Amino acid sequence: MLAVPHRAPGSCSFARVTTASDAPRSRTHSWTDPRGFLAHARGLSGLEILRSILDGAQPQAPISTCLDFALVEAEVGRVVFELRPAEYHYNPIGTVHGGVIATLCDSAASATVHSTLQANEVYTTLEIKVNFVRAVRAETGPLRCIGTLVSRGGRVATAEARLVDAADKLYAHASCTCLI
Amino acid sequence: MLAVPHRAPGSCSFARVTTASDAPRSRTHSWTDPRGFLAHARGLSGLEILRSILDGAQPQAPISTCLDFALVEAEVGRVVFELRPAEYHYNPIGTVHGGVIATLCDSAASATVHSTLQANEVYTTLEIKVNFVRAVRAETGPLRCIGTLVSRGGRVATAEARLVDAADKLYAHASCTCLI
Amino acid sequence: MLAVPHRAPGSCSFARVTTASDAPRSRTHSWTDPRGFLAHARGLSGLEILRSILDGAQPQAPISTCLDFALVEAEVGRVVFELRPAEYHYNPIGTVHGGVIATLCDSAASATVHSTLQANEVYTTLEIKVNFVRAVRAETGPLRCIGTLVSRGGRVATAEARLVDAADKLYAHASCTCLI
Amino acid sequence: MLAVPHRAPGSCSFARVTTASDAPRSRTHSWTDPRGFLAHARGLSGLEILRSILDGAQPQAPISTCLDFALVEAEVGRVVFELRPAEYHYNPIGTVHGGVIATLCDSAASATVHSTLQANEVYTTLEIKVNFVRAVRAETGPLRCIGTLVSRGGRVATAEARLVDAADKLYAHASCTCLI
Repeated sequence: MLAVPHRAPGSCSFARVTTASDAPRSRTHSWTDPRGFLAHARGLSGLEILRSILDGAQPQAPISTCLDFALVEAEVGRVVFELRPAEYHYNPIGTVHGGVIATLCDSAASATVHSTLQANEVYTTLEIKVNFVRAVRAETGPLRCIGTLVSRGGRVATAEARLVDAADKLYAHASCTCLI
Repeated sequence: MLAVPHRAPGSCSFARVTTASDAPRSRTHSWTDPRGFLAHARGLSGLEILRSILDGAQPQAPISTCLDFALVEAEVGRVVFELRPAEYHYNPIGTVHGGVIATLCDSAASATVHSTLQANEVYTTLEIKVNFVRAVRAETGPLRCIGTLVSRGGRVATAEARLVDAADKLYAHASCTCLI
Repeated sequence: MLAVPHRAPGSCSFARVTTASDAPRSRTHSWTDPRGFLAHARGLSGLEILRSILDGAQPQAPISTCLDFALVEAEVGRVVFELRPAEYHYNPIGTVHGGVIATLCDSAASATVHSTLQANEVYTTLEIKVNFVRAVRAETGPLRCIGTLVSRGGRVATAEARLVDAADKLYAHASCTCLI
Repeated sequence: MLAVPHRAPGSCSFARVTTASDAPRSRTHSWTDPRGFLAHARGLSGLEILRSILDGAQPQAPISTCLDFALVEAEVGRVVFELRPAEYHYNPIGTVHGGVIATLCDSAASATVHSTLQANEVYTTLEIKVNFVRAVRAETGPLRCIGTLVSRGGRVATAEARLVDAADKLYAHASCTCLI
């Protein structure tokens, strides 16, 4: 079941979308300076950082409000993001651009690794492979992207992500490698 | 050298960005209904379609104006996109989200395959692997993403992409597989 | 639990291994002409083909006896191979070469797709990504590589593989894309 | 042009192949204890290590004689391996198994990273993605696999590999990530 994503203060303006079919559409999104987040995150474990976003104590990332996706669940080794597919995500051929799908998969897989970090551990994503299984359109409705930890060593971790709709139909899956 | 990207009519409003450091920022982007593009593309070769975007006869894709990147060069088997990295592309840790980088790589690699298509051939991207080499920030300045064809069979094609700055320093590279 | 792999007739000679520590080692492997197998496979479903190998009615593939791995389980959407790691699999740095691990993963993931095919459907593997999690050595003991179907469309299927030891510890994992 | 690969002493017995079409085939390969190599490699740069194999001062890896491929060129950031495709490399469907192709690609890409290492630096391959472009058969003749460095940071390096025949026709390509 799809929950309503938490929205942090300052990230709520993306409802102003014009969609008259014969006119240019436009949309306004807003975000907050991510440096506040970085200052806040110091000394917290990865899971504590993710939970402070879930709680609304910290804003979703700037890219989250730009593309209208949000972190909606986090535990150690498992993280979920949600996306509302929309026309402004489209490639020229009329479906959601693979890069938007990759963004969700990258967020879910990377945040899954993040959820396993101790305070003061940092990580970077080295690579991700994304398989596109089905086209996504606005009519597809909200999608969930579920990240799962696959391996966790001292320096390297790998995680997977699956992008599914409300009926658990698969739209994409990914695997990524992170350096800790 | 970085060229100034062509901007199609209707995709020019993304300059309205508020950046006072202690306030929420906001930005408005606009796009046009992609169905017009699809109608236009019928009967054209892949290269003709890409050139109609370059010429401004057709708009950049909705996702292009959302994330502020644009197709800037196209020939058979080689395509270039440009991105202006900005704060609204950031992940929580203060760098451009890997998904934005993946979006550029996917656009460049996929459009490279598109450039090889005859009229009435269509393609779909099956998978892409993206390697993240260096963090990208707003200060990095405009980036070019160069797609190159690697193999082209009757049903399957593969292409690569390299994301570089004005000094040709590498930030990411990718390889993708398309079905024709 | 690791089963004893079935060995088809004609593939049993790989026990002749010389391992005196100060002498060159040598080993003899044998295989049968794969054209007999192809003739046999005509008109059978993918699962029937895999089961004829499991039953010993058909030999393991030539590469299986070369590298000493074998198909040991097969059902629709799930296939298991086993490998006995040995010194002749080693790279110069004294561990089993990543290519041997990739061979197992490719076999398991590809055969998983094969298990879903109707009679007269054929497939080809387009790409595989393999993550190497832990070094494998002869002392690691027998490994199982479990293939699982992830998606299956009319023309494209994806599958995963996990390489684990007798205690289910993970050594590698992979995801692959096949064209049907 | 394809050179005759250098063969280190002790790795030369793979010519004894029986190929009468109606009989089981067999083949004997030999190798030397890789621990001697490891002792030798201490204190040498990556390129010096690779060159000691090229010179015949050190043997090819055990897996090289098992699968009949060999390192034939090495400079900093570029390495070439050669393979003689043969029937014992075959999968059940009568072509060289993708794992053998992956082994070549892994060897070439990994050794390319190795060629950039200082004495006492070590590396491990985190992941490789291999795209299979064309089927390989014994009749294809010798193949060269050319590794090229793509990026080299302090801790992470990426490299590519291309598998081509004598006419430079592409059979596979790969990209891999290594940790230093």
